[in-house]
Amino acid sequence: PAPDLAARIRHAIDTKTKPPGSLGRIEDLAAQIALLQGTLTPRMERAQLTIFAGDHGIAAEGVSAFPQAVTAQMVLNFLGGGAAANVFARTAGVALRVVDAGVAAELAHPELIVRKIAPGTANSAHGPAMTAAQCERARAAGAALGADGHADAVCFGEMGIANTAAATLVAHKITGRPVAELTGRGTGLDDGGLRRKTEVLQRAAGRTGALTPADALAEYGGFEIAMMAGAMAAAARARRLVIVDGFIASAAALVVLTEAPKLRGAMVFAHASAEAGHRAVLAHLRAEPLLSLGMRLGEGTGALLAWPLVRAAAAMLTDMASFDDAGVSRGL
Amino acid sequence: PAPDLAARIRHAIDTKTKPPGSLGRIEDLAAQIALLQGTLTPRMERAQLTIFAGDHGIAAEGVSAFPQAVTAQMVLNFLGGGAAANVFARTAGVALRVVDAGVAAELAHPELIVRKIAPGTANSAHGPAMTAAQCERARAAGAALGADGHADAVCFGEMGIANTAAATLVAHKITGRPVAELTGRGTGLDDGGLRRKTEVLQRAAGRTGALTPADALAEYGGFEIAMMAGAMAAAARARRLVIVDGFIASAAALVVLTEAPKLRGAMVFAHASAEAGHRAVLAHLRAEPLLSLGMRLGEGTGALLAWPLVRAAAAMLTDMASFDDAGVSRGL
Repeated sequence: PAPDLAARIRHAIDTKTKPPGSLGRIEDLAAQIALLQGTLTPRMERAQLTIFAGDHGIAAEGVSAFPQAVTAQMVLNFLGGGAAANVFARTAGVALRVVDAGVAAELAHPELIVRKIAPGTANSAHGPAMTAAQCERARAAGAALGADGHADAVCFGEMGIANTAAATLVAHKITGRPVAELTGRGTGLDDGGLRRKTEVLQRAAGRTGALTPADALAEYGGFEIAMMAGAMAAAARARRLVIVDGFIASAAALVVLTEAPKLRGAMVFAHASAEAGHRAVLAHLRAEPLLSLGMRLGEGTGALLAWPLVRAAAAMLTDMASFDDAGVSRGL
Repeated sequence: PAPDLAARIRHAIDTKTKPPGSLGRIEDLAAQIALLQGTLTPRMERAQLTIFAGDHGIAAEGVSAFPQAVTAQMVLNFLGGGAAANVFARTAGVALRVVDAGVAAELAHPELIVRKIAPGTANSAHGPAMTAAQCERARAAGAALGADGHADAVCFGEMGIANTAAATLVAHKITGRPVAELTGRGTGLDDGGLRRKTEVLQRAAGRTGALTPADALAEYGGFEIAMMAGAMAAAARARRLVIVDGFIASAAALVVLTEAPKLRGAMVFAHASAEAGHRAVLAHLRAEPLLSLGMRLGEGTGALLAWPLVRAAAAMLTDMASFDDAGVSRGL
């Protein structure tokens, strides 16, 4: 973009028929979108949600309130249109697709996109969740999915029993925050379950020392998290707005932004999850989410709820009248 | 509604295919909508925004950063489709109409709904803004507009130079909070302007002692605020969901809910305005808004941005699969 584009965007926003600054974060969002698209008249017409599903060997340690079979069951629920993500996508007019990144079950459905790296990761409490080669394959498969299509904005969701455990360990290795601070109840552990999960994750974290983001992802991540990281990076490089969902998606974004900080301009953080570790990851990234609704579901549900704000922000800049256009007097 | 409806609604929400509570405030919102509509399958298909415009005699005291002529100019901007409210309404699929409640100019436009009580209120720094009869006429005109149409949810916006001054005084008389705490910069007063506005409002407040909500509205309110209060009450009585916008709209809601607390179940508070007094009014009403985006424009813009959340909440309850429907295992 031209070096003065940011200033011209700010001027355009400030001469719209409203007191300067009176649309708060919607103005900042509009400026971000305009800069990303390199124009004073940005467009946000189409969004797409891609849900990546994968299983986790660490589920065997009893770190989730739900059995592992739920991952595959929920994939079928997405394909049947009955999950929260389906419902929110329909009300928001967002297309949805589902990717098997590594579910521990054979799933057959004409609309399922199969990119299965393996039937679940290995148990990262005892050894690497995946090999470096598997991690690279997952990221490459995600990159292909992140770069295709014609959406102006992309939402990425995930499904994977025990994936808050995986995201917590990845976030711990990259941010350096203590495991106990980052560990949360996931889908609903009680106090005893939370204690046990924290102990399991502390032991797992102790297996390794300092790691690069790529190594943290392979040692502790999941196929759905690695695939999402690849998709986010590719979408951001294609100058699509990436609407980052909750804790798991933010862990994927943390990998991407630690490796390529320049992609930050393509990312907007949708909502503050109720999961404990999310706050620390957001603080590390200096990110302030648009919504704070006490949600902790994943699936891209937070990103879907933020999409109408993104649309409104772009339309504000592109379609609102200026003081001169409308013959409205400026401030005294 | 049946006495056990609330429990049945809660059970339906808890057996949807998601961990209980994992959609946070969206679940509470769904329950509120279902209770209001008296059904386990609520509908939120259509919303309407009505913008009430009126002028304020107290503008003569220099309490706004914009000249009074802007009220009429912005009405024409709404009718021309160029204001923020128009743009947000289009992206959200919400119908918009504009009402002249008491603009200090003769406005002629085929789509303007004229319910003009008078060409602006009197200056409430020196005497009552309106007579009790005018206030009643404004509320009755609003009630007729709030009860008509077929919308599932209604948003009310306002335009009126100096109407944060009016709302501040109404809020002061009803909540008892100090004028200095409630007074804000409105459309953008500087420090000197804020000081002057605070002094003017303190003097105006000193004219009267304790007042009923109806008397506070007549002494200090505006025609657009009174008409909005009438519309809110009538819409709530018709069991429509009232999406309450920012500070001015919350002052109208404060009048309504002080007089008729039972209407609280029909109201959802859209966003936390950056205007100083809004926090105190929300605290007084024990209301927690859905959004906090640093906005302070009015026009119903905050309500419009909350509408997609309302739609998503109703659709969650009506359209999501249950664990049994989808064959998904429950928690361990």
